[in-house]
Amino acid sequence: MNLSPEVRRVVEEALREDRAWEDLTTRLVLPGDPAAVAVAVVKQEAVVAGLEPFAAAFLLLDPATRVELLAHDGERVEPGRAVARVSGRAAAVLAAERVALNFLQRLSGVATLTARFVAAVADLPRPPRVADTRKTTPGLRALEKAAVRAGGGCNHRFSLADGVLVKDNHLALLRAAGLDLAAAVARARAATPHLLRVEVEAKTLEEVEAALAAGADAILLDNMDLGTLAEAVRRVAGRAVTEASGGVTLENVRAVAATGVDVISIGALTHSAPAVDISLEVV
Amino acid sequence: MNLSPEVRRVVEEALREDRAWEDLTTRLVLPGDPAAVAVAVVKQEAVVAGLEPFAAAFLLLDPATRVELLAHDGERVEPGRAVARVSGRAAAVLAAERVALNFLQRLSGVATLTARFVAAVADLPRPPRVADTRKTTPGLRALEKAAVRAGGGCNHRFSLADGVLVKDNHLALLRAAGLDLAAAVARARAATPHLLRVEVEAKTLEEVEAALAAGADAILLDNMDLGTLAEAVRRVAGRAVTEASGGVTLENVRAVAATGVDVISIGALTHSAPAVDISLEVV
Amino acid sequence: MNLSPEVRRVVEEALREDRAWEDLTTRLVLPGDPAAVAVAVVKQEAVVAGLEPFAAAFLLLDPATRVELLAHDGERVEPGRAVARVSGRAAAVLAAERVALNFLQRLSGVATLTARFVAAVADLPRPPRVADTRKTTPGLRALEKAAVRAGGGCNHRFSLADGVLVKDNHLALLRAAGLDLAAAVARARAATPHLLRVEVEAKTLEEVEAALAAGADAILLDNMDLGTLAEAVRRVAGRAVTEASGGVTLENVRAVAATGVDVISIGALTHSAPAVDISLEVV
Amino acid sequence: MNLSPEVRRVVEEALREDRAWEDLTTRLVLPGDPAAVAVAVVKQEAVVAGLEPFAAAFLLLDPATRVELLAHDGERVEPGRAVARVSGRAAAVLAAERVALNFLQRLSGVATLTARFVAAVADLPRPPRVADTRKTTPGLRALEKAAVRAGGGCNHRFSLADGVLVKDNHLALLRAAGLDLAAAVARARAATPHLLRVEVEAKTLEEVEAALAAGADAILLDNMDLGTLAEAVRRVAGRAVTEASGGVTLENVRAVAATGVDVISIGALTHSAPAVDISLEVV
Amino acid sequence: MNLSPEVRRVVEEALREDRAWEDLTTRLVLPGDPAAVAVAVVKQEAVVAGLEPFAAAFLLLDPATRVELLAHDGERVEPGRAVARVSGRAAAVLAAERVALNFLQRLSGVATLTARFVAAVADLPRPPRVADTRKTTPGLRALEKAAVRAGGGCNHRFSLADGVLVKDNHLALLRAAGLDLAAAVARARAATPHLLRVEVEAKTLEEVEAALAAGADAILLDNMDLGTLAEAVRRVAGRAVTEASGGVTLENVRAVAATGVDVISIGALTHSAPAVDISLEVV
Amino acid sequence: MNLSPEVRRVVEEALREDRAWEDLTTRLVLPGDPAAVAVAVVKQEAVVAGLEPFAAAFLLLDPATRVELLAHDGERVEPGRAVARVSGRAAAVLAAERVALNFLQRLSGVATLTARFVAAVADLPRPPRVADTRKTTPGLRALEKAAVRAGGGCNHRFSLADGVLVKDNHLALLRAAGLDLAAAVARARAATPHLLRVEVEAKTLEEVEAALAAGADAILLDNMDLGTLAEAVRRVAGRAVTEASGGVTLENVRAVAATGVDVISIGALTHSAPAVDISLEVV
Repeated sequence: MNLSPEVRRVVEEALREDRAWEDLTTRLVLPGDPAAVAVAVVKQEAVVAGLEPFAAAFLLLDPATRVELLAHDGERVEPGRAVARVSGRAAAVLAAERVALNFLQRLSGVATLTARFVAAVADLPRPPRVADTRKTTPGLRALEKAAVRAGGGCNHRFSLADGVLVKDNHLALLRAAGLDLAAAVARARAATPHLLRVEVEAKTLEEVEAALAAGADAILLDNMDLGTLAEAVRRVAGRAVTEASGGVTLENVRAVAATGVDVISIGALTHSAPAVDISLEVV
Repeated sequence: MNLSPEVRRVVEEALREDRAWEDLTTRLVLPGDPAAVAVAVVKQEAVVAGLEPFAAAFLLLDPATRVELLAHDGERVEPGRAVARVSGRAAAVLAAERVALNFLQRLSGVATLTARFVAAVADLPRPPRVADTRKTTPGLRALEKAAVRAGGGCNHRFSLADGVLVKDNHLALLRAAGLDLAAAVARARAATPHLLRVEVEAKTLEEVEAALAAGADAILLDNMDLGTLAEAVRRVAGRAVTEASGGVTLENVRAVAATGVDVISIGALTHSAPAVDISLEVV
Repeated sequence: MNLSPEVRRVVEEALREDRAWEDLTTRLVLPGDPAAVAVAVVKQEAVVAGLEPFAAAFLLLDPATRVELLAHDGERVEPGRAVARVSGRAAAVLAAERVALNFLQRLSGVATLTARFVAAVADLPRPPRVADTRKTTPGLRALEKAAVRAGGGCNHRFSLADGVLVKDNHLALLRAAGLDLAAAVARARAATPHLLRVEVEAKTLEEVEAALAAGADAILLDNMDLGTLAEAVRRVAGRAVTEASGGVTLENVRAVAATGVDVISIGALTHSAPAVDISLEVV
Repeated sequence: MNLSPEVRRVVEEALREDRAWEDLTTRLVLPGDPAAVAVAVVKQEAVVAGLEPFAAAFLLLDPATRVELLAHDGERVEPGRAVARVSGRAAAVLAAERVALNFLQRLSGVATLTARFVAAVADLPRPPRVADTRKTTPGLRALEKAAVRAGGGCNHRFSLADGVLVKDNHLALLRAAGLDLAAAVARARAATPHLLRVEVEAKTLEEVEAALAAGADAILLDNMDLGTLAEAVRRVAGRAVTEASGGVTLENVRAVAATGVDVISIGALTHSAPAVDISLEVV
Repeated sequence: MNLSPEVRRVVEEALREDRAWEDLTTRLVLPGDPAAVAVAVVKQEAVVAGLEPFAAAFLLLDPATRVELLAHDGERVEPGRAVARVSGRAAAVLAAERVALNFLQRLSGVATLTARFVAAVADLPRPPRVADTRKTTPGLRALEKAAVRAGGGCNHRFSLADGVLVKDNHLALLRAAGLDLAAAVARARAATPHLLRVEVEAKTLEEVEAALAAGADAILLDNMDLGTLAEAVRRVAGRAVTEASGGVTLENVRAVAATGVDVISIGALTHSAPAVDISLEVV
Repeated sequence: MNLSPEVRRVVEEALREDRAWEDLTTRLVLPGDPAAVAVAVVKQEAVVAGLEPFAAAFLLLDPATRVELLAHDGERVEPGRAVARVSGRAAAVLAAERVALNFLQRLSGVATLTARFVAAVADLPRPPRVADTRKTTPGLRALEKAAVRAGGGCNHRFSLADGVLVKDNHLALLRAAGLDLAAAVARARAATPHLLRVEVEAKTLEEVEAALAAGADAILLDNMDLGTLAEAVRRVAGRAVTEASGGVTLENVRAVAATGVDVISIGALTHSAPAVDISLEVV
């Protein structure tokens, strides 16, 4: 299994945080350096993600450990399913266990929640994208964005450098300075790398009109009720990408999607996904 | 505000991940380097945590930014409460906003969930500790453990090096090797630093008896039903610290506590706490 | 002067590489820790860039050093112009001198070369953007891209994650696999973050037509002669952004621009810009 | 191929800068994880350098990639020469391509320019060393100094800690403090590690005499005209190493060498070498 | 040989510090890249420790080097004993030699000194633990604590986070604030992770009584004379772990042990152990 | 106090190793965040070194701490002397105490031992340099070399890149390959940076002659008895720097010096210096 340097970096830091090479218990309790074989068993219905950092935890702690993946990121599994088999020195397997599971449980949680949102809108005639946000766990953004993709979702910006998004606070400052939105959008368009688009946030239909008039490539429809949302989509009429955001839940996502928006972005995919219950069991 | 090197390290990495010094939007949209003042407003009832990394995000991006804290970690706040006031160059305030909030929302989430568990057992005559686990977010353990304390909880082990905890997988390997638990505990006690205790996991009353006989300082009562738990506590009779773990929820925590256990440890405090809704609003 | 963490990181590494805190000469030759004042003098006509890392070298080695900037990034200066004044302990000023100048000379070189390209096309009725590429110095991309902006140029992609650019090698692999370009572009458009565009490279007019048909947002016109380039622009007719690349020099850039392309990207801006002659002179 | 930790460190940072593990294009455009074979072809006459970091980019991104070197550092190649063959997963090959080439093109540029200077003086009866300076790219000094050697040049100091070089600014400060050069050189000689020499800069014949009288092991003859340079060499008469520096070009290097100096040091070898044109072509 | 990431990190830093990939001597003196075989020979009676970082120095510099261990950490060896055999490219073997030996000599020094203390008390009827302290070399704590174990000693706290130890300075501050020791110990016991114990320092018998009364789990008997120490042990009477510390030497350790203390902690094990004489000899 | 980035890096790592921001004791035992003033008192006659990293430990943990130095590196102090005064939050002072002292005690140990060697030869008519070696503590070389200077000693090479030293293992490999020492020295001289010298190790008078004949700038006289050493110095007769090394102790250093060698290098200065007894006392 090839580990990207990015995964190596994050997992090494996690092993260091857990001081996995000072595992007192294993050192003191298990004499004779026995071997162990263990399987990672998912205890609930889930979509798996994070198998690469899971494996990395074992391989970085002891490259002689063998990790065999029995599932792949993005796969939906039933309770009781073994998704990986780990064999090697027991001391290394047990010392890396918690770090490995911390990645797998969290990232599978992100994928599983994403998949539920995707499923809720999938049978609409023209389902919108379900997208993440930059509300990710500090340090884990690349891994969480990969988990969103594993769950069938799409990524929004990776960082402040890959897209222009004029949000409420920018608008407030423009207004305070007596500046014009259209001029601001024009400035952005003139100077941003030519493969990037310009999006403008709107809270009201008037702001939608203003964003359109300013030439926004995309409009973030923030916290609108369903009626306003539908009217906003109607007015945009395909002249810009429409993105609904704010207060979207599993309960209302289908109704939001039915307004015809192109994208629904949901911070909870990464900031509030509960971990999936997965355990490592010595066999 | 003094930032510990640990917070600086984690927050710098998060700023780098978000490429906060390449914030296209602010650079292109806001001419003339205006100033801005913003407040962080909590939108729901919550216990605050993470104000230090929140402030660090602004101060590391631009040391000339001023961050005034209007609350303190561990404080319970009502919806609408402003917990911090940030002033400085608008470009710096807005570029650090998302990273700052990602820490504050997540860590306040941990503190808030912890506080709910603590409150659920607080009026018992002899309430147990509500403790975290090592099921923390990779890279954020120190911050999340501080958030648990802010919520009124206690910390369990920080890492594999500060305590001996003989878990099911160790027991399975001991059994497979035909080795004796008592001897294993004795080995641990003889060699572990003398300020550390030895804990043994037990799934059944027989295992509780075995752990006691082996001389465990503490016993992890794993996934027992309430009756078994109470019987375990009765049998231990104060000879070891009793810790209940596994399947504890806000619904059943009070009943678990009523069995008389000393500690209830809950992975969900850190692996499944939903983020608190907090926004930064330019004023 | 506020130093972004990114600049701090790169400059600290450079100071470490030069072992600036083991400057034998200054330690052995100058007794009594004298003070020094020095000015950075540009010896040729140039556009300045890199003043922040220049200052950072002094400030990181000794925070008590004072750096006064006498010019700003993007300013055109005449030979003999002092652009910064540094005062502090002589030992610190001289130990940081080389690292400070290495940044300033190289980045001013990038800005100066960029400005020459920009000037060569500036008086055209509709001048194209002069853009950089990813052919930057390893480790210095953010600084070099800022220098390009200081010289009046525009940035292209910062990294592989902020834009889709289907290049000759991708096309060769698609062809080898019997795959369709239009399907590939459709796949990219369906899954790439919605603020990113899709660009396709074309070496011939047939490939331009194919790219257009596939729905590319932008077309990279690679190494075309002027006639072909003009014809390509005519055929695209505004349906996609046109970018000329390959073999563009100060001699031919005006002619390339006159074909009507929207963007001219030039690797030499960052990979072959000669350093500007700048020296630090004790006064 | 063994990668030194130093090369690994620099190349990993470059891959991270390019976010090579988030290569959107390859992920979205190429389905089915095809394999690819590519060759690095040099498009102009050149001396090759940087093959180790070139290979490292591929191997670090995906250790399963195979890199076969078809030339060696320091080898002179004709246009069209393939210097390396890379095979592996297309996604990994293409994602590492730009980083790999950025090293190879830049370092081959340094080697090629060095070789031209060396060739210009090689047939003199007693050719001087062609040496680099500390005017290197921040972060790449070790690699650039290796490229100078690959081009047939010699290295000057690696850092401020391996040699004493009393430059104009030191001399100015000594003069301002009313201090004696001879005493300064004596101080340096008494305390510097005994494997290091002491060099003094001189701009005039008087300063040459002063440096000699002070006991300098080497004299840096700074920016002298040819006549003065020859006279300086005559006066030194082998009592110190003579180093000519400042304003040396391919046009005048032979004349400078003919003055009999021992060393000619040239900042442009590393700060202004144009990149060599090299491309990676899928075959 | 598997290298833990922790060892890799420390050894890479040491190689970088020694600039092992710029070994001028080997590069210039040995033409033709010859192979070499060398053995590490211990020149005095010693207990070996540090074989893993010793091997790591060679393997990290050149993974093709082969390191065969001929002894194991904790083994007592006689003068002249070869403890490892290294074979590979001579350039790599010689460039890593000094770093490898620096680890092996220092850590064997720690193990050897520890073993002498352990031997001095081993034949007592109930020998105390010989324990280290936190007085370790900055950056090498994990390695030095492993060397103490190799010498037959026990570890005390790894860090400030794994145990509560109320020392003289805490006591002074408590007194200055008019605070009660018992309350302080109670606060600590109530909030410290339940696998950690609370230790209190005592300089007099009165302080021993106070610590006992406060409920300390362990008492650090600081710099007591032998009579006081014996009386302290008698008074504690098994109600707390007793630890003697301060001024323990090879001359007096047996007498200290004879007082009946449970633990003797000795800073000198790590802060003043002389290096063992070990050399690497090409064969 | 200005902290060099190098000191910051090493001290931050040490604070992290000690998990100084998780100091359980101070957090749990001392309520109300009291202030504290403490002095560092040297308990034995010593030469002080390491005051900068000592101060750094406090300042990095809490920049609001104030550290006042009452002595300077290189100063000889009597028992009982206070060398620094620290004031600030008690929690920060006590949490940084151990790390601060670990640096100060170890580095003062190096300076003190060096000063004893220097004093032992100081009144000779022509005292040799007392020099360190590369046998330093991994990670602390720069600090230990500064401590040697503080003790009145001189530095030898900082790393493998600042000097050519042909040692016994190189000689053995040359011999094994049938290669000539003179040619090897000539190769080194031709290619090493011109500010570096070439030293050759010799164990016998024959090897001294060979080194001289080969043109060595310096000769390392390894482990010679006094008579041989004197004869070697006589034969060299000033044609090369003579360096005695191996088995030099405080007992024999004066006799070694009396042979007339220029340099005496002693690994024990850094690898076996006992720590100085220094404590931090709250006042």
